[in-house]
Amino acid sequence: MQNSILSRFTPKEPKFFNFLKQVSSISKEASSLLGEALKTKTQEEHLDYFHKIKEKEHKADILANKIFEALEASFITPFDREDISELSNRLDDVIDYINGSSKRIAIYNPHVIHPAIIKLSDLVIAGAKAVDDGINMLSSLRNNKKDVKEIVNSLHKLENEADEVYEMAIREIFEKETNAIELMKTKEVLSELEKTTDAIEHVGKILKTIIVKYA
Amino acid sequence: MQNSILSRFTPKEPKFFNFLKQVSSISKEASSLLGEALKTKTQEEHLDYFHKIKEKEHKADILANKIFEALEASFITPFDREDISELSNRLDDVIDYINGSSKRIAIYNPHVIHPAIIKLSDLVIAGAKAVDDGINMLSSLRNNKKDVKEIVNSLHKLENEADEVYEMAIREIFEKETNAIELMKTKEVLSELEKTTDAIEHVGKILKTIIVKYA
Amino acid sequence: MQNSILSRFTPKEPKFFNFLKQVSSISKEASSLLGEALKTKTQEEHLDYFHKIKEKEHKADILANKIFEALEASFITPFDREDISELSNRLDDVIDYINGSSKRIAIYNPHVIHPAIIKLSDLVIAGAKAVDDGINMLSSLRNNKKDVKEIVNSLHKLENEADEVYEMAIREIFEKETNAIELMKTKEVLSELEKTTDAIEHVGKILKTIIVKYA
Repeated sequence: MQNSILSRFTPKEPKFFNFLKQVSSISKEASSLLGEALKTKTQEEHLDYFHKIKEKEHKADILANKIFEALEASFITPFDREDISELSNRLDDVIDYINGSSKRIAIYNPHVIHPAIIKLSDLVIAGAKAVDDGINMLSSLRNNKKDVKEIVNSLHKLENEADEVYEMAIREIFEKETNAIELMKTKEVLSELEKTTDAIEHVGKILKTIIVKYA
Repeated sequence: MQNSILSRFTPKEPKFFNFLKQVSSISKEASSLLGEALKTKTQEEHLDYFHKIKEKEHKADILANKIFEALEASFITPFDREDISELSNRLDDVIDYINGSSKRIAIYNPHVIHPAIIKLSDLVIAGAKAVDDGINMLSSLRNNKKDVKEIVNSLHKLENEADEVYEMAIREIFEKETNAIELMKTKEVLSELEKTTDAIEHVGKILKTIIVKYA
Repeated sequence: MQNSILSRFTPKEPKFFNFLKQVSSISKEASSLLGEALKTKTQEEHLDYFHKIKEKEHKADILANKIFEALEASFITPFDREDISELSNRLDDVIDYINGSSKRIAIYNPHVIHPAIIKLSDLVIAGAKAVDDGINMLSSLRNNKKDVKEIVNSLHKLENEADEVYEMAIREIFEKETNAIELMKTKEVLSELEKTTDAIEHVGKILKTIIVKYA
């Protein structure tokens, strides 16, 4: 019924896959830096890691712009363009939320890192890896259809798990934490991390859409 | 100028309407459970209702997946697919926000349920009903164009009313509540309920788009 | 390769440009009112300005509806319709966030207006102006392609600057403010203003998309 994504733009435009792979690779790196940041103690160290992650975000922005310029210059159809553009934007969101999580840790500077913050960050690292795997399968989508679907499902489960961790932690801190400002800090960091897993699942949803259209 | 949504996919694919009706019916049920939850007192009861609503959310997720699989397997055009997919996703959002509202009540466990929480929950119940009515009119959109438009308008008004209720309540609690943690809890529950009415209005906007394209 | 946006709908449908210009003009006016509001002191004055801004939002809603009705009645293609509709919706978002910022100032009623609130409001005013300039260039997009691109870039930079202002301010208040409720108020107003600049950048992203498709 439709041309595969492969026959539509791989032979003509392999650069788009390379660009998308670079972006998803950056999001993987950013998630690792977030994990490392959480092993440090001082606000200065958190700010250092935040600035490293911000550099990654900046790199991703430049790449997103390159994707945009390449889309503008190439002769592929507008429809394909929009899918690439959507994928690029949603990958960017993931990096933005990782950046946002790191930012909150650095600028709110909670006195204690709650264990659920570590757990959620581990899920973000796993999710960014799965997304990167999925992006790397796009260039031969027909052969990898089943695997991409599995990744999509795993991202959905991961988000549910993050939800659980988030809920239990929030319930606990609202029961036990009596310092309103510290409560607010932990709650907001947890919430941004949970949104990061939502953004990761959103990439999964776009991958789902791409399977519908092209696989 | 265009084929109606009817001639485009009703005869071929009535299952999509059935699926969408099932999802909107679930959102109506979830909104009723939210209303019932607010009539209970203890955190345990709130957690029970939250888990019931979460089951509804899970059911809706499975349905969304069925819609996705059916879209993938069927021979209707990609354009129609995207509209069905968008509607399915936005209905899912409504259920997610109802779930989120119930979750916050359960896991923050505010000492007192503010009257505005009840009022907003009543608006959510009314909105979920109107959305369900609208979805049930889709299978013969041409005949129901005027009614669907009215529903779209009513959802817009409902959201405005929710806004008013939210504003007055926030103003009041920031004037009177001196316990920062209790203030935070009530504020966040009110805010999630208000976002639920936004999500309900968003379904209205998709219905609007569908009228533009097919009615 | 493609028809310009000009040859596609200008000659037939100049009214769409007029509508969009009216909406972006309203967002500019709303941003000015926000700036004026911040020069006043009492909650009553803030509420007055909030109601003035809300009237603008209402005007914008009516215009959005007119755009919707006009799209429905006209013979331009569905694809173009969606772009106009998207632009109209995103412009609406900007006004909604300006409204939201003003609302929070009015209903939270912070004891002191933090200097960063003024700085962010200045960026919103500048952003709404740039967006308005961009919208005014749409009717002859081919001639203005370079200028629109520059506006898109400037909106991206503006959002980054807003991010910086926001971060420094949050860091400072979490270090120094000991009143949890006042901290919450300032944090939430800053956050809504920062989201306003995100929404402004989002309009920029749509302008970017429109260049990709039509210029």
